[in-house]
Amino acid sequence: MSLASRTEDTHAESSQADGLAAVQLRAPYLIYFGNVPDTGHAKTGLGLIQWRREQCAGQLRSPGCKVDGGLTDMSVAQAARAGVGSIVIGVASEGGSIPDAWVGDLAEAARAGLDVVSGMHVRLSDFPEIVAAARASGARLIDVRTPPRHLPIGTGRKRTGQRLLTVGTDCAVGKKYTALAIEQEMRARGIDADFRATGQTGIMIAGQGIPLDCVVSDFLSGAAELLSPDAADDHWDIIEGQGALSHPSFAGVSLGLLHGSQPDALVLCHDPSREFLLGTSARREYPVLPVTESIAQCLTFARRVNPQVRFVGLSVNTSMLPDPDRRVLLADLERQTGLPAIDPIRDGAARIVDVLVAGGAA
Amino acid sequence: MSLASRTEDTHAESSQADGLAAVQLRAPYLIYFGNVPDTGHAKTGLGLIQWRREQCAGQLRSPGCKVDGGLTDMSVAQAARAGVGSIVIGVASEGGSIPDAWVGDLAEAARAGLDVVSGMHVRLSDFPEIVAAARASGARLIDVRTPPRHLPIGTGRKRTGQRLLTVGTDCAVGKKYTALAIEQEMRARGIDADFRATGQTGIMIAGQGIPLDCVVSDFLSGAAELLSPDAADDHWDIIEGQGALSHPSFAGVSLGLLHGSQPDALVLCHDPSREFLLGTSARREYPVLPVTESIAQCLTFARRVNPQVRFVGLSVNTSMLPDPDRRVLLADLERQTGLPAIDPIRDGAARIVDVLVAGGAA
Repeated sequence: MSLASRTEDTHAESSQADGLAAVQLRAPYLIYFGNVPDTGHAKTGLGLIQWRREQCAGQLRSPGCKVDGGLTDMSVAQAARAGVGSIVIGVASEGGSIPDAWVGDLAEAARAGLDVVSGMHVRLSDFPEIVAAARASGARLIDVRTPPRHLPIGTGRKRTGQRLLTVGTDCAVGKKYTALAIEQEMRARGIDADFRATGQTGIMIAGQGIPLDCVVSDFLSGAAELLSPDAADDHWDIIEGQGALSHPSFAGVSLGLLHGSQPDALVLCHDPSREFLLGTSARREYPVLPVTESIAQCLTFARRVNPQVRFVGLSVNTSMLPDPDRRVLLADLERQTGLPAIDPIRDGAARIVDVLVAGGAA
Repeated sequence: MSLASRTEDTHAESSQADGLAAVQLRAPYLIYFGNVPDTGHAKTGLGLIQWRREQCAGQLRSPGCKVDGGLTDMSVAQAARAGVGSIVIGVASEGGSIPDAWVGDLAEAARAGLDVVSGMHVRLSDFPEIVAAARASGARLIDVRTPPRHLPIGTGRKRTGQRLLTVGTDCAVGKKYTALAIEQEMRARGIDADFRATGQTGIMIAGQGIPLDCVVSDFLSGAAELLSPDAADDHWDIIEGQGALSHPSFAGVSLGLLHGSQPDALVLCHDPSREFLLGTSARREYPVLPVTESIAQCLTFARRVNPQVRFVGLSVNTSMLPDPDRRVLLADLERQTGLPAIDPIRDGAARIVDVLVAGGAA
């Protein structure tokens, strides 16, 4: 691992031009729900509508679609006439590919000049019909899982502006949701705050970002540094966390992101219904760490890049608990940590932002 | 970051077939020194000769070459007649590319049926003359920086056999050298031990391995798991470490490797002449951590995947110190840590292997 200046050249093919700015999506959006059978497979589209309703012009649903995002139903032709910029695949398929049933719809949209935005594992460029349609109209094919081409090696240089990073005791414990709820609350108070996306759904919501888990590992912290560049002193980047330092599958990503983010503030996300880490329950090998231990681990590494870093809250998924139990649990976590403990879906993020703004907690 | 079964499909082009076995190099080797101006740029070739002398049949040097690896000088034709399997680029160029002056030599070797092995940043497949020559003869073009295509996500599942990982207080503090010295000492004692390579020079020496820093980050610990598979109970894999948990540029790689390696034993490598981390001296922002703090950090994370893990030694670069100072320093480090502290170049790795075999230290 040399420290010489290097750039990533691993991606031989990409429909995106160079540089971070290139992943900027073109709004407004037509959300593609296709023939999705349930809301569980439509999380991406529903999340985009929840957090960026003002950028969603309509939805495209096929016969048999069981989801309604509450947007105006539109055909591709109607969307094109209405000035829609992109069709966004808002659904996940079994197996991560793009089913034949979708290809015709996406090609039609590309032919009409709409950019096609996908967070699937397969690339849009692997579908000749979609490629040909895009080529004919000049539309862009944007795979949000494809990172920018020329990522730098991280430097650890201290940047201006302020940063909050959501971290977790496990994967899939609400790190993206919590970051978005904090951004929403801060903006409502007139604070200059931007959600910074590190995963495919987050990138669709933000309209830009870097898919950290798709970055070549030598460039992990460099990508995180690029994601939250120098900013005004009173600006906050609210960065979507990934994985968990304690998860043996993904901790490398978590640590690269933690170092590169240079957080001033951290929020720990936690799901008290998990006894073992996601994906390890059958083997019972990896218990979820206590929140106090997770906090201590994160601080050890975060202080390396920012000695003033502090935790400002806990974000807890209490959806499995009835109300009295839920309040007891949150009160107990507050006692253990000295931090406000909230469920962002039930309570919002106001109490965390209170601490953040007051400069309190540790 | 989903836990569904996924494979890496980032590498659109590779001259290697699928699977880990595919990076197996074909010995014996012709070491290519070209017109290298100094030994500093010939480290790869000299390291290969040092650690795998028996696999090096000869060296190819151009007019102006200032390095002699002590092998028989051979032309490509002589090497082909002698049954050489591969020509290995043993030198680094300014800028990481393959200069025009080398292309003709490498193409000649490929035309003669020798595999061409490169650890450069540019790919051999980017040079049409070399590609055409290899195609004509059936020789393979092997870029050791290209990881296997279908890497798994890490699982954290406990594997059989035993593993030692070298870790560091910084980058470039002897982690590869130390692992090789330990392998050599163990083999001399009749212990079943294999050096496991994670960087390009190490891969050339081992003849196989995975370039960890080139792996897409979601697959970091999965790649490390693949590198040291289930083995006999008394077998030791001696794994080459990368980076440092405390280095803000590369810690993600270090943690993914630590988790995926599930080490039973750790050796900390250290360069006492470094005040600040490599690449950060000008800014004086990142002091090298004390060895005791580095040890504590590594143990915290290594215990997550193997509660029985223990440190068995310190490997210290004392080349900057005169002998009395060197002994004082090593004795002081031994007092601080309770571990044998050796300079592997001056002292060999015997005292570390003593502790390893005895099952002592912590």
